[in-house]
Amino acid sequence: MTETKGYAVHEAGTDFSPFNFERREVGPHDILIDIEYAGICHSDIHQAKDEWKDSMPTSYPLVPGHEIVGRVAKVGSDVTKFKVGDIAGIGCFVDSCRECPNCKNGQEQFCFKQAAFTYNGTEMDRVTKTYGGYSNNYVIDENYALKVKTEGDLKGVAPLLCAGITTFSPLRRFKVGPGQKVGIVGLGGLGHMGVKLAVAMGAEVTIFSTSPKKEADAKSLGAHHFVVTSDPANLAPLAGTFNFILDTVSADHDVNPYLNLLGVGGAMVVVGVPSSPNAVHNLSLIFGNKTLSGSLIGGIPETQEMLDFCAEHNITSDVEVITPDRIAEAYDRTIKSDVRYRFVIDMTAE
Amino acid sequence: MTETKGYAVHEAGTDFSPFNFERREVGPHDILIDIEYAGICHSDIHQAKDEWKDSMPTSYPLVPGHEIVGRVAKVGSDVTKFKVGDIAGIGCFVDSCRECPNCKNGQEQFCFKQAAFTYNGTEMDRVTKTYGGYSNNYVIDENYALKVKTEGDLKGVAPLLCAGITTFSPLRRFKVGPGQKVGIVGLGGLGHMGVKLAVAMGAEVTIFSTSPKKEADAKSLGAHHFVVTSDPANLAPLAGTFNFILDTVSADHDVNPYLNLLGVGGAMVVVGVPSSPNAVHNLSLIFGNKTLSGSLIGGIPETQEMLDFCAEHNITSDVEVITPDRIAEAYDRTIKSDVRYRFVIDMTAE
Repeated sequence: MTETKGYAVHEAGTDFSPFNFERREVGPHDILIDIEYAGICHSDIHQAKDEWKDSMPTSYPLVPGHEIVGRVAKVGSDVTKFKVGDIAGIGCFVDSCRECPNCKNGQEQFCFKQAAFTYNGTEMDRVTKTYGGYSNNYVIDENYALKVKTEGDLKGVAPLLCAGITTFSPLRRFKVGPGQKVGIVGLGGLGHMGVKLAVAMGAEVTIFSTSPKKEADAKSLGAHHFVVTSDPANLAPLAGTFNFILDTVSADHDVNPYLNLLGVGGAMVVVGVPSSPNAVHNLSLIFGNKTLSGSLIGGIPETQEMLDFCAEHNITSDVEVITPDRIAEAYDRTIKSDVRYRFVIDMTAE
Repeated sequence: MTETKGYAVHEAGTDFSPFNFERREVGPHDILIDIEYAGICHSDIHQAKDEWKDSMPTSYPLVPGHEIVGRVAKVGSDVTKFKVGDIAGIGCFVDSCRECPNCKNGQEQFCFKQAAFTYNGTEMDRVTKTYGGYSNNYVIDENYALKVKTEGDLKGVAPLLCAGITTFSPLRRFKVGPGQKVGIVGLGGLGHMGVKLAVAMGAEVTIFSTSPKKEADAKSLGAHHFVVTSDPANLAPLAGTFNFILDTVSADHDVNPYLNLLGVGGAMVVVGVPSSPNAVHNLSLIFGNKTLSGSLIGGIPETQEMLDFCAEHNITSDVEVITPDRIAEAYDRTIKSDVRYRFVIDMTAE
């Protein structure tokens, strides 16, 4: 077995403490990754607090973390894609059935048998519990690990494995590129990645935010325009002018004003999960043949494409690095949106 | 001027009576169509009753009708596409600005200056009132008339100009074809066209209806499967199996159960306008990267493509022909869904 030092909560809340456990032996197709950084995703917080108990109840002890980057420390006998010393990443899942149409199509996140989630799940044996990246290592089949080509400091790479792919996938699916006007709703962990990626894809990018204070940040992230949404008068002149809008907001809000900003054939993609359903007027979609769509992370091939794109365009997440003893504090600040724009835990710190 | 005999309501309601009026002289680019059949679209009823007074108030006297087919009786000096005796159709609009990006892109229904609607609108001069197809002729610019290649009886062609294009356009936009599973929600005027078109495109088609009585009809229209939606247990085994769903229902209903039927990357298009907004759960879209979209009729090029497709595949609407004195009765029966599947008025009847 592989000895692992992690940080876990043992009951609903944010009371993290050191937790030693064992991962499986490194098998012929596995690699052992010594984790350097693990990002804090808002879903870690929901899971730690058992706030999704109806749909995804938490199994304690819980070691969260699905934005993982580190170095390969050991490779199995049949491994071909990685060698010791390579930089590798892990995202939201670590295995899947490999046989269903979605797995074969590179959309393992929608595996018919349900993918093995990186934490608070099980391996595909449906018995062995998974523990996440708030730990010093992970053993994973090489086919579910990602290659990281980014040079230099890795701390900003970790959040790409969730926040990065969550925003990259819909931008790619709707073929965002030069000559297009793209809106990003919300400037948080997801939104700030959306801006960087859409700008790198060549689009003219507008940030929509309720907070006027974020304008300078938006511009420094590369956004071409910034619109404060609390005053509807700011939106009126933009009606019908956008090709694509990515809505990253998880708080309840009305999507119809944003649908109104789309031009004919325009699309809006939601990646946040507000607690209430959206009241969507059919006329908001019918006039202009408009589309409202959703997007869930991405499969392994697209996640690799995203990491390669980010390496090529020097894109990383803006992060604040903490030591593992400050996880609860980081959770509190994340809930208050008091982070620019993602916390990552330095898993090499004692 | 061109003398026209029509049928109008003079106040909110269905009290139609003969109404003589004048259309413009046939100009160099115009054709005069002697109307043979005009379909009764549910929107005619809303408009006659002034039920859309907030968004599209009715200007009386109102001559409805935007599902028009007839024969060319006169052509202007510069007309090139039509000759006297040709069969021609008119849909929901009769002109547009011709200069905006949407017009240039063949999506005149979304003209920046607003298209000239076939009735209850104005010509592009924004002064001359338009009267619809419940009349014995129409004068229209040849570029906004459609060529009809269907041989034989024309009565089933009229509804193609609205019900046909309304269902054809989204099926085409989402590339419905062989090997795909397609659902049609609702079996009325729109739904019965959706079935015929989707079957002709090669898809495996399922009708979803609240009415078990419609099963035999559904099968005779070419549907491969029929599902009664009043029992949720009928939908459960179909989860995740559809590529595309066309929702033609205008009554309030929950779209989430249908979104649940879509597979990964699947799309559902709404063409009806319920009075209440849809409560769409973001998770219904996020899990499976699903799309909810809307669609409004179609532009001139696509409407022509639809008519050609229908001629090639021998597709017409199933209709019940009435004389103009029975319009009020037909309205009542249309409201009660007591029609298979569209009323058309024989405008050659005295």
